[in-house]
Amino acid sequence: MTDTLTGLAGASEEQVRRDDRAHVFHSWSAQGLIDPLPIASAEGSYFTDYNGNRYLDFSSQLVNVNIGYQHPKLVAAIQEQAARLTTVSPAFANDARSEAARLIAEIAPGDLNMVFFTNGGAEANENALRMARLHTGRHKVLAAYRSYHGATAGAIALTGDPRRWPSEPGMPGVVRYWGPYPYRSAFHATSEAEESERALQHLRDVIMVEGPQTVAAVILETVVGTNGILVPPPGYLQGVREICDEFGIVMIADEVMAGFGRCGEWFAVDHWGVTPDLITFAKGVNSGYVPLGGVVISDRIAATFSERPYPGGLTYSGHPLACASAVASIEIFREEGIVEHARALGEEVIGPELRALAERHPSVGDVRGLGVFWALELVRDRDTREPLVPFNAAGADAAPMNEFAAACKQRGLWPFTHFNRTHVVPPCTTTADEVREGIAILDEALAVADRHTTAG
Amino acid sequence: MTDTLTGLAGASEEQVRRDDRAHVFHSWSAQGLIDPLPIASAEGSYFTDYNGNRYLDFSSQLVNVNIGYQHPKLVAAIQEQAARLTTVSPAFANDARSEAARLIAEIAPGDLNMVFFTNGGAEANENALRMARLHTGRHKVLAAYRSYHGATAGAIALTGDPRRWPSEPGMPGVVRYWGPYPYRSAFHATSEAEESERALQHLRDVIMVEGPQTVAAVILETVVGTNGILVPPPGYLQGVREICDEFGIVMIADEVMAGFGRCGEWFAVDHWGVTPDLITFAKGVNSGYVPLGGVVISDRIAATFSERPYPGGLTYSGHPLACASAVASIEIFREEGIVEHARALGEEVIGPELRALAERHPSVGDVRGLGVFWALELVRDRDTREPLVPFNAAGADAAPMNEFAAACKQRGLWPFTHFNRTHVVPPCTTTADEVREGIAILDEALAVADRHTTAG
Ligand SMILES: Cc1ncc(COP(=O)(O)O)c(C=O)c1O
Ligand SMILES: Cc1ncc(COP(=O)(O)O)c(C=O)c1O
Repeated sequence: MTDTLTGLAGASEEQVRRDDRAHVFHSWSAQGLIDPLPIASAEGSYFTDYNGNRYLDFSSQLVNVNIGYQHPKLVAAIQEQAARLTTVSPAFANDARSEAARLIAEIAPGDLNMVFFTNGGAEANENALRMARLHTGRHKVLAAYRSYHGATAGAIALTGDPRRWPSEPGMPGVVRYWGPYPYRSAFHATSEAEESERALQHLRDVIMVEGPQTVAAVILETVVGTNGILVPPPGYLQGVREICDEFGIVMIADEVMAGFGRCGEWFAVDHWGVTPDLITFAKGVNSGYVPLGGVVISDRIAATFSERPYPGGLTYSGHPLACASAVASIEIFREEGIVEHARALGEEVIGPELRALAERHPSVGDVRGLGVFWALELVRDRDTREPLVPFNAAGADAAPMNEFAAACKQRGLWPFTHFNRTHVVPPCTTTADEVREGIAILDEALAVADRHTTAG
Repeated sequence: MTDTLTGLAGASEEQVRRDDRAHVFHSWSAQGLIDPLPIASAEGSYFTDYNGNRYLDFSSQLVNVNIGYQHPKLVAAIQEQAARLTTVSPAFANDARSEAARLIAEIAPGDLNMVFFTNGGAEANENALRMARLHTGRHKVLAAYRSYHGATAGAIALTGDPRRWPSEPGMPGVVRYWGPYPYRSAFHATSEAEESERALQHLRDVIMVEGPQTVAAVILETVVGTNGILVPPPGYLQGVREICDEFGIVMIADEVMAGFGRCGEWFAVDHWGVTPDLITFAKGVNSGYVPLGGVVISDRIAATFSERPYPGGLTYSGHPLACASAVASIEIFREEGIVEHARALGEEVIGPELRALAERHPSVGDVRGLGVFWALELVRDRDTREPLVPFNAAGADAAPMNEFAAACKQRGLWPFTHFNRTHVVPPCTTTADEVREGIAILDEALAVADRHTTAG
């Protein structure tokens, strides 16, 4: 390991930046209008740029670094597996793959006992949908507005947010429904209980008019992530489970973002005691140290492919290096009580502190979340709930949110912002003091948002 | 690195096998009918099972281990980067990402200067297609029969082989054409020159009847991989390039399998001096030590997304650990002359030796390939060219090929078989002696195939 063959460590910021602009094509971006910040290093809850500026990360990158940066035991496990065996095709058995699958099945609810591994979340949802279609022999899938499921052709068609627009018309067979969102109810509900009941009635109505016998699956994010940390009101997930059972529809829970500690549970569904037929995961399974995702499969659906081949795959399904990092990550989570820590952090620190912020800032319209998965929804006016910036705002329209984000960064906090929200989604290992440090910065930065309110 | 947190190294074969059958859902398989062999270790051109049986790998797993197993410098580079920084979101710049993109742009032909990174081949093709559609403002894509492009909704719709059948109806907009295949010409050609000319005429005719102004892209595997190592006859790729230019169609070369040394060139297109608009890659870029793929993008297509956002992405685009392994792999390829070795191996050893085999075995109908990318096409009868097993054979129909494969494995050779072919696709680092050792085993195993011929 002294052989610095690549000499990567020696690159200057200027060189990193120049090669980035000359050669790296960035996702979701106009290549000529961006200036990506080069990151030099990261540790725990912080990352550092080339000028020594250190940022407390309230985004966990893309809400994937659940275990924090560069956890020494996880790094060691990757190094160890790299020395043993990095790659083996999906057709073989392999110790890291077997053990990762066993551990994931162990923490998954109910009879979700088999794991199909992928490289990331989009591929997981693609394969879950394929399984559901072949298991039921039906074609349609119900997917929610205000959702993100990935950017391959199937996953982007499932996606309910504007990122799918440029990829339309896409894969056929997707039917859209509205999920619960008490703060901006599509159902004119005035309580959580009413929101839950009406959202279920709506889902049932959509299934009725689509024809239940044509519907293969309902897919939902257990807790909607990027599109707002929309925590389902009590009874909703149970209700979806019942509707799916009634009509023989496969219930797919996308836990790519919500799973593996993020919601203070191994899987977010545990919070409500609901067992879907398929759970898709990625991100937190190994905090993205090595690309990995997958589908956890119920016995009933696995049985469909017992004698009949499952017609899907990818070269790196069950990649040993990725699987070894998942094994280590799950063991570290257990040893260090990270799931419990995440739950307590939400209940005892993040929730109370954010609600206190809301008291002080007229721009905060709503506070919601659980575990280390929280949102502040920013508004111009608390009474009308008019968003601080319009839906899908870009350019000048988005200025208030950009000013808010800049104010955070100046003060050493890296925020996660989307539309008119800022999410509080640090690593699950962040300490209470670090969280308070970040929330103190939010407190200052929200003054910027307040100026854009009718009160400001 | 002495902290064996996971204790993975200690698992018994029995345990690996039991957990595999209980918890690992395998790709392209009937879960109840398989018994995947547990692999214990691998080095260079060989891998070893738990009973100490050592196999010379003529498959490079899924034709991805171009650099051979556990190359010490590549392992060291992964360990080093793991210690530095494993994960950073696509929105930042990062030294490993910048350098990997720079190196790939350096070896890519023409003005293919920007790299969009993915986790694997399917995602690369998905994004190439999205770029082509948005760049042209057109929707249709021409894709070849006898091709494989991956198994996400877009990639499987592009795929021309039977693996797409269970996923149909799929993404709309795919139009199928026939590529050149001199040994079984769709065009009744009797020479390579005629095959090339007629295949081009066919492609032009399909474009004419589809309406050139509706066609966004033509996608092809530069050398068709799994579906037969179909080397394009002289003039074909140049002809496709000209047709694409004439009609403003994006030419996408899928080099997921054919690239990075496999064909004795950095990119297979180099063999013909043709520059596509987009090249997709994965596998050989880092031999799959860490999941990685991507799209190399021409200046003209990149410019389309200069002011206008590119609407696609994935959490692990430009993953630092994956990118660092690509940097190291490319440097090792250069230091060790692996591309040149692969070319020489094909010209001086594999080609001549396989042609000599064909002399001795009536079951060998055709020998074709280049670099370390070769196929023996097995037939019942050399005159009629009737395949040794039918197209897409399964079960008892496939028995002759299964017997042949079993004979190889008994003798310590792990073959790659598909339909009525065996491919000779060892790591690009395999020595001439190792190749000869493997071909000697093929020589014995072909006696099994010979018995199923009209001569046998
Ligand atoms: C809920 C959810 N599903 C799926 C995905 C897609 O995962 P990936 O980017 O790994 O393809 C994401 C990514 O942010 C996500 O948040
Ligand atoms: C030519 C080609 N394209 C695309 C793919 C799909 O790549 P992946 O399995 O990494 O998604 C493959 C895989 O074998 C391939 O051979």
